[in-house]
Amino acid sequence: MLKIFNYPNTNLFQKEPQMELTAELLHITAGGRRIAILSEETASQLGVHSSDRMRITHNKHEAIAIANLAIHFPNNRIGLYEEIAQILNLKEDQKIDVQLAKLPESLSHVRAKVRGERLRETDIREIVKDVVERHLSEVEIAAFLTALNIHGLSMSENEAMSRAMVETGKTINFNKTPILDKHSVGGIPGDKTSILVVPIVAAAGYTIPKTSSRAITSPAGTADRMETLCPVNLTIKEIQETVNKTNGCLVWGGSLELAPADDLFIKVEYPLGIDPMLLPSIMSKKKAIGATHVVIDIPTGSGAKIKTMTEAYLLASDFVDLGKRLGMTIQCALTFGEQPLGCAIGPALEAKEALETLSGNGPPDLVDKATTLAGMLFEMVGEEDGKQKARNILESGKADEKLREIIGVQGGNSKVTPGEIPIGDKVAEVHAEQAGRVLWISTENIVQIAREAGAPKEKGAGVALRAKLGDPVKVGSVLFEVHAERNGKLESAMELSSQLRPFVLSRKAEERMLLDQVPVKVARDKSFMLEH
Amino acid sequence: MLKIFNYPNTNLFQKEPQMELTAELLHITAGGRRIAILSEETASQLGVHSSDRMRITHNKHEAIAIANLAIHFPNNRIGLYEEIAQILNLKEDQKIDVQLAKLPESLSHVRAKVRGERLRETDIREIVKDVVERHLSEVEIAAFLTALNIHGLSMSENEAMSRAMVETGKTINFNKTPILDKHSVGGIPGDKTSILVVPIVAAAGYTIPKTSSRAITSPAGTADRMETLCPVNLTIKEIQETVNKTNGCLVWGGSLELAPADDLFIKVEYPLGIDPMLLPSIMSKKKAIGATHVVIDIPTGSGAKIKTMTEAYLLASDFVDLGKRLGMTIQCALTFGEQPLGCAIGPALEAKEALETLSGNGPPDLVDKATTLAGMLFEMVGEEDGKQKARNILESGKADEKLREIIGVQGGNSKVTPGEIPIGDKVAEVHAEQAGRVLWISTENIVQIAREAGAPKEKGAGVALRAKLGDPVKVGSVLFEVHAERNGKLESAMELSSQLRPFVLSRKAEERMLLDQVPVKVARDKSFMLEH
Repeated sequence: MLKIFNYPNTNLFQKEPQMELTAELLHITAGGRRIAILSEETASQLGVHSSDRMRITHNKHEAIAIANLAIHFPNNRIGLYEEIAQILNLKEDQKIDVQLAKLPESLSHVRAKVRGERLRETDIREIVKDVVERHLSEVEIAAFLTALNIHGLSMSENEAMSRAMVETGKTINFNKTPILDKHSVGGIPGDKTSILVVPIVAAAGYTIPKTSSRAITSPAGTADRMETLCPVNLTIKEIQETVNKTNGCLVWGGSLELAPADDLFIKVEYPLGIDPMLLPSIMSKKKAIGATHVVIDIPTGSGAKIKTMTEAYLLASDFVDLGKRLGMTIQCALTFGEQPLGCAIGPALEAKEALETLSGNGPPDLVDKATTLAGMLFEMVGEEDGKQKARNILESGKADEKLREIIGVQGGNSKVTPGEIPIGDKVAEVHAEQAGRVLWISTENIVQIAREAGAPKEKGAGVALRAKLGDPVKVGSVLFEVHAERNGKLESAMELSSQLRPFVLSRKAEERMLLDQVPVKVARDKSFMLEH
Repeated sequence: MLKIFNYPNTNLFQKEPQMELTAELLHITAGGRRIAILSEETASQLGVHSSDRMRITHNKHEAIAIANLAIHFPNNRIGLYEEIAQILNLKEDQKIDVQLAKLPESLSHVRAKVRGERLRETDIREIVKDVVERHLSEVEIAAFLTALNIHGLSMSENEAMSRAMVETGKTINFNKTPILDKHSVGGIPGDKTSILVVPIVAAAGYTIPKTSSRAITSPAGTADRMETLCPVNLTIKEIQETVNKTNGCLVWGGSLELAPADDLFIKVEYPLGIDPMLLPSIMSKKKAIGATHVVIDIPTGSGAKIKTMTEAYLLASDFVDLGKRLGMTIQCALTFGEQPLGCAIGPALEAKEALETLSGNGPPDLVDKATTLAGMLFEMVGEEDGKQKARNILESGKADEKLREIIGVQGGNSKVTPGEIPIGDKVAEVHAEQAGRVLWISTENIVQIAREAGAPKEKGAGVALRAKLGDPVKVGSVLFEVHAERNGKLESAMELSSQLRPFVLSRKAEERMLLDQVPVKVARDKSFMLEH
């Protein structure tokens, strides 16, 4: 098959004209893009065309912005969208220097990866730098990620990528050792495990500074869950204080500028439904907070992101290998991924279930998973019988005490009771239409229903399961409840639920031999699970 | 290697709220992107986030636009960038309906291609439709093209793509048969052949309605060359008139909406330096004008886009095969691609050389190529000794007469003499520093110098070669002249020329055994040749 590969000429010797223009703040946002408006006349003088990238300099700070051209715009002014104005900290009427930006150096490396070549460490560093500086466009990043997805990353490339993502962002130094951490590759709704693991480990005296993301495609991320209990948008200083006082924290990592390239990559990956950077995405964030020992949860099963044990073992050994290269000890837990974890799905519902579990009233699968993962961390730092130690801490109430201490220091009400957490009061039940056992729960359908109900944006919304796999049900038993904060949301979630029918019941095992048929009458898109 | 593939959920059942807003024309262009501004409040009511796509409807016309959010913007108004205002033909203060657009259906096909799957005809049709309607974003198109580049297109996919590109644009029916056409895959600077082939074939009584592009990466496209002689931006009606009167035309295809998806793909391909759609790009445009017999020029050699005969044969057989499937008879000419064609490079310089050749004073390589290609067309429709017939038409002056007739009907001066064409009057010469023979001319360096001098934007700019491969030169002989319209451009072109040194001379063949060394001291990017 003939492939044509060539490279645009770089105008190596052309000196770009520069102009001083007056800043005009437009107060418009472009979803993260750094855009500036010029008059056609000004653009022509600069040699800039619409969509070209410009280098903007003010007080020795520079940034790259995309040019949009206006027919009626003052010739000596430059209109700044919110993102670019903020980055350069510009005020109305300040003077800035503008010139056409050269093509980014890393573009040749992007093209090399499209051709399937392996990239060197310096190549990858240049790419990540140009991503963070917005010098590479979304189109170029999309090509890069697509090529990565098809060709794959070698372990050396994964290492170089992780390091580059750490170096182009901030790091936090807790001045302690060891630093423990837990992370999940994601995929199971209701996975509130961190809210138990962190206080269990912190109560034992170990440092566990957990940063988490908000939900992108799921009904709740750990940051969303915690935010129903206390503030999570802490500054680096506040995080250090919390960890100093309590050994742990449960905060949102988003505004801390830890591995900022990660969010820029995720923004492009999301619509494309690909996740080629799973390893460096997770490992860079761990490295940025100085983790020394990390337990990685890999939910495995038909309801999870990783479907088979073979895939899970492959991924796990990659994590261990990459960890070694980055100076972190990694243990992976391949955990049950056939159904949601616990019964609550949705930020407030899950926070409530976590608190109930810490008081001794929690679902057995959640208790087992949390104590297993905490136990693995204990054994990684030399303890014996880690899981038993974790169980003791949980059952003694020390973990509950520790979480409340963290909640208080982070600025929430340390005395909050599970009943006080506001959950959606517009509630409807879905009942079993036959007797039998729960044979299958479609996690993706549950996710869709929870999001239709308003999660995670409306924190009280979500789903409360009343039966799990294997449970017997009678005609009319409640299978699950849908919670919403608004009636309109409840209605469309219930309509979705009756279309999707996420529970499969069976009287006898033999009744359900047909898994699916081809061609399918109704094409349904599966959920894309991007959080990790 | 583990790959994770999933799909964003599509909110199948959510009814999108709709609002009526008042149009506010912003008169800003975004390089082709269709952008509209909303207040944050309005966006929130619509469920729209920054960068989301919205469906905008007015008078039963609809279009997709990308949302940017403004902090201070009237709640009941929508700010329209130039491109979206034009497409919907909107005037200030008109009322339009706006709602969040669902994810494009074709996105799942894009992801399928990223996974390496073969696409069906309907899939490809949906993709092309969503590209033309701007429903697929640039990021999604970039992922698609990158995946195409890596996985390749089967001949069925090429056929489906060509057809879809024709169907999503306009077509021209000339009500004649046969319809002849010529096209080059590009790569050789100075390739003014069409300006001779069209009048030769038209003079013989055959219909040859040639549409061409403007230069993207080269110093001159056929549309740029012709524009120095007459208008090229003709309407479909004017093109039909020209062809009715003269049998031929030489016009710009850009604004005719023939295969509009092509330009949208090229826009994304260009920065990525890839060309996976070469076949459907060319064939769709030929099909759109109803061509029945097409000669495809494939310049082959170190100075061209196609480097080896093996690649050329592969490409040629693909063209013939695709042509058969689309109902067109294709002949491919593999032509000499080791140096520029003729001596003139740059729009005006090349138009001048074409006119001189039609009067009998042209370079032998140009004459040979033009008569060969025209001859192939003649033989494709049953003539014998096609090349001799073409030579006769050229030498008799009938081709010159015919071109002048075309120039006149298209609105130019049919009596124009070569000397009257305005070429850049800021001229500098580059001399040979030794005696010897011309061993090698770097076509990419010549292209860079011509573009540095101002071509194609400044039509009179370019390069005039004074020696070709194999020519003997003395010390001080002029190797080439650089023409520019401005002194500043001439200076930087001359500086570039002394750095690049595009001519390689040799006294004895044995003196020049070293082709290149690795590692190279100076990294130079090669030119990316995109026109075809």
